[in-house]
Amino acid sequence: MKRRDFLSLVAASAGSTYAAMIALDLLSQPAKASKKLELKPINQPKTVIVLGAGVAGLCAAYELEKLGYHCVILEANNRIGGRCFTVRNTTKSTEIDGQTQQSTFDEDLYFNAGATRIAQHHVTLDYCQELGVPIEPFNHVNEAAYYYQVDVGKLSNKKIRIREIKQDFLGYKNELLAKAINQDALDLELTKEDQEKLVTFLQLEGNLSPDLFYKGSRNRGYSTLPGASLNPGVIESPFDLSAIIQYGFSWYILNETTFNHQISLLQIVGGIDQLSKAFVNKIKGKISLESPVQEIRKTTTGVKIIYLDKQQKRQSITGDYCICTIPLTVLKSIPSDFSQPMKQAISSIPYMATSKVGLQFKRRFWEEDDRIFGGISYTNQNITQIFYPSDHFFSQKGILVGAYNYEEKAQYFGNLSIQEREKLVLQQGSKIHPQYLEEFESGFYVPWHKLPYNLGGWAMYNTDMRKTVYPQLNQPDDHIYLAGEHLSYYPGWITGSLESSRHVVAQLNERVHSLG
Amino acid sequence: MKRRDFLSLVAASAGSTYAAMIALDLLSQPAKASKKLELKPINQPKTVIVLGAGVAGLCAAYELEKLGYHCVILEANNRIGGRCFTVRNTTKSTEIDGQTQQSTFDEDLYFNAGATRIAQHHVTLDYCQELGVPIEPFNHVNEAAYYYQVDVGKLSNKKIRIREIKQDFLGYKNELLAKAINQDALDLELTKEDQEKLVTFLQLEGNLSPDLFYKGSRNRGYSTLPGASLNPGVIESPFDLSAIIQYGFSWYILNETTFNHQISLLQIVGGIDQLSKAFVNKIKGKISLESPVQEIRKTTTGVKIIYLDKQQKRQSITGDYCICTIPLTVLKSIPSDFSQPMKQAISSIPYMATSKVGLQFKRRFWEEDDRIFGGISYTNQNITQIFYPSDHFFSQKGILVGAYNYEEKAQYFGNLSIQEREKLVLQQGSKIHPQYLEEFESGFYVPWHKLPYNLGGWAMYNTDMRKTVYPQLNQPDDHIYLAGEHLSYYPGWITGSLESSRHVVAQLNERVHSLG
Repeated sequence: MKRRDFLSLVAASAGSTYAAMIALDLLSQPAKASKKLELKPINQPKTVIVLGAGVAGLCAAYELEKLGYHCVILEANNRIGGRCFTVRNTTKSTEIDGQTQQSTFDEDLYFNAGATRIAQHHVTLDYCQELGVPIEPFNHVNEAAYYYQVDVGKLSNKKIRIREIKQDFLGYKNELLAKAINQDALDLELTKEDQEKLVTFLQLEGNLSPDLFYKGSRNRGYSTLPGASLNPGVIESPFDLSAIIQYGFSWYILNETTFNHQISLLQIVGGIDQLSKAFVNKIKGKISLESPVQEIRKTTTGVKIIYLDKQQKRQSITGDYCICTIPLTVLKSIPSDFSQPMKQAISSIPYMATSKVGLQFKRRFWEEDDRIFGGISYTNQNITQIFYPSDHFFSQKGILVGAYNYEEKAQYFGNLSIQEREKLVLQQGSKIHPQYLEEFESGFYVPWHKLPYNLGGWAMYNTDMRKTVYPQLNQPDDHIYLAGEHLSYYPGWITGSLESSRHVVAQLNERVHSLG
Repeated sequence: MKRRDFLSLVAASAGSTYAAMIALDLLSQPAKASKKLELKPINQPKTVIVLGAGVAGLCAAYELEKLGYHCVILEANNRIGGRCFTVRNTTKSTEIDGQTQQSTFDEDLYFNAGATRIAQHHVTLDYCQELGVPIEPFNHVNEAAYYYQVDVGKLSNKKIRIREIKQDFLGYKNELLAKAINQDALDLELTKEDQEKLVTFLQLEGNLSPDLFYKGSRNRGYSTLPGASLNPGVIESPFDLSAIIQYGFSWYILNETTFNHQISLLQIVGGIDQLSKAFVNKIKGKISLESPVQEIRKTTTGVKIIYLDKQQKRQSITGDYCICTIPLTVLKSIPSDFSQPMKQAISSIPYMATSKVGLQFKRRFWEEDDRIFGGISYTNQNITQIFYPSDHFFSQKGILVGAYNYEEKAQYFGNLSIQEREKLVLQQGSKIHPQYLEEFESGFYVPWHKLPYNLGGWAMYNTDMRKTVYPQLNQPDDHIYLAGEHLSYYPGWITGSLESSRHVVAQLNERVHSLG
């Protein structure tokens, strides 16, 4: 369409280009109107008791209050935010076995011990915009970060830049496929011309020689960098394909390609706790900290919640409805009036054991010495990952995520004492960054499965559970609704908690309106 | 090595972990000590005339002054920075044919019309650190940005998210290769076990079915996003392999994988001009703006430069040495005493024609509607690329790089009037972002090959030129040294200019010392 035609169409659409575009189906993807929840306010106030002041609970209270509900929030921890947990100077944590630690990080430093990353399609961003919480890039993939694998054959115990392995693997893959196509080894439904185009692209992408061999590439990096004048740089030979196969790096690459992990990712400026704080600033209802729920009871007209107050005294509160965001691992042990199928469902969902560690260093050697600005190094040692900060580059000190592990590795790690954890993290991390030992100042170690009001990282459904128990968990049980990341298709992501709360708020509000 | 052993080694290495590590060869990549140029200062002051106040010239003056040289800098333009050019409110530019424009961008908005991106291995970062210029992430790759191709078969004239094409292509590639391996169609030097591992990984990475077919993937995105409760999202069928081949997207992917383009990339907070400003703040020598060089002459003991002053009067200045950073395209027309081989070399290097455009919009629709935070959309239309800003997310307005094209496309674009350029950019860009027409406020259009003191984007050497004329250009011609991106293996990158200046400063200083 010509611009002139377009402009006349715009005129015909009451001056709205956007309306004109929609009429023309010019937007191949649906344009996102504001994702603000637009629900009908209520006339007669109702009281909703929200269990848990993580982002699921906070979002529910925030949205309900917009509609005229009165909310009361009970939180077992001494802080808001749940798994949106930013560890700062003096942050304390006590684990189920009584093991306690207190952060000694510098006052201006912090790390997100739980949720951090936000994908571009997540509704989390809409709340950041609505609440005025600034966001910035989170460098999720860094080709200059390292792989370090033990016991994987020839390439064991070496620091290898991610780009080296990736480019070599790409090169070999393209070499093999290009040759197969050229030798007519494949039963391809492609024209001869398309086959030639494909081979040409494989050659370009994989840096293959004219006779289709991969012999290394400038893209895998240099042993001597290029420079000025007559210095074109020196490249090394590639690794063997068999060595790369034995390297077994599959999980690492997959961590870059899932829909929720794909770049560009974002983070909240100043720490993930800024989101929960922004919610709290808007919430009028009382948030009671250190108030663990003891019983969840149904009444003839609503709910009654028994909890302990800060003086460890049993208190009781009644409301018309309850939104319960307590993790299932914790909820299953709380005496309740849930129906028998609901109780069974609550008990049946396994949670991810996972640990995250923050390490404060005197100097940002990963930037100064290793030239790594954000991103993740991967290892098959217990620590699994090292995250480099995407902010405050070249400032004096910094905090690395020194470990982020899962399942058996996290279990093993969580069973260590704080001192043993520190030793392990420094010993394994120093294989990748020998500077660790000289520059280390202090650490904070968070095994989520050992925190009494979390008891795990996130819900782990398999396909079968999604079909059987998951629908049950999504049914309100009389006046009680469950919400949280575990009631969404984004387990472990902030957006899952928010989507779930929005869904439950809409469901509850519809019910209230239908009752008149 | 055990930590205890390591610590005793550290003790033995005079307490320096770092020395110990180096002794042990624990650092598989050379640790980067400070890249500060450490050269021997001179006793008898010498005068160096620096031609050009781009970063090459500024860096040369900065480094020379550290050593005791007296520098005088002549700049033809009315601003410093050269191709590190940040267009702000009221920025003016005049092209060789007299076409003039003045920016009407808002006061707090800007765009980098030339160099922007910094790779992690670039010495540019060392200068940012040394000069206290803050850096931040530059989102170079965004899987949610678009491809939009015209005349490429079935997928023409569609907005396609990058992830859709990439994941489909990966899937088909892996399907074909996995099948070829399973059918023993390839003459592989791999054990049976390694072949199985390879197939398993290809399957995982490419999201192949158990029988090794690619049938689409959640990683390519959803037509209905997953959400809370019972909404797992809806995925669409993949594109045909033949359609993808005809799509011809090769260049785009290659733009993500070269060593200098690989993520993580960085940018300077507040605009690339902050780097040149930081140099200027440290330089004591006089920088004369609007002082185009008219003649470059040799004297018996040094150099004599004739230039026009702001009143268009011919002035002459003499010095012991000259560092000339003038682009070869401009230099070749300046009368000079260069040797005949040097003159020939200067005249023989082609430069890239390239244009960049900044477009100010009332609203950041790419973030609000399209959920794109940084990164680049690609098209085979004239505009070639759209860059989304990696900073100030969700602020009210924003500037996109609305075109960044090369060669014939840039030539064509540069030959248009400002009004025609605007029309072209809006018309082509609105194919990808129909919001353009409603939200556009103002633009600024920079064809580098038409700016009188640039006459091109960067030097374009082929392999042959690197062998023949390039060494000649790197030889000092009596007391005159050439420097700039064109005297490096990083053509078009800031780091090339800096590396070249550092090299020439070291070379010149060594000569001065050797002369006693």
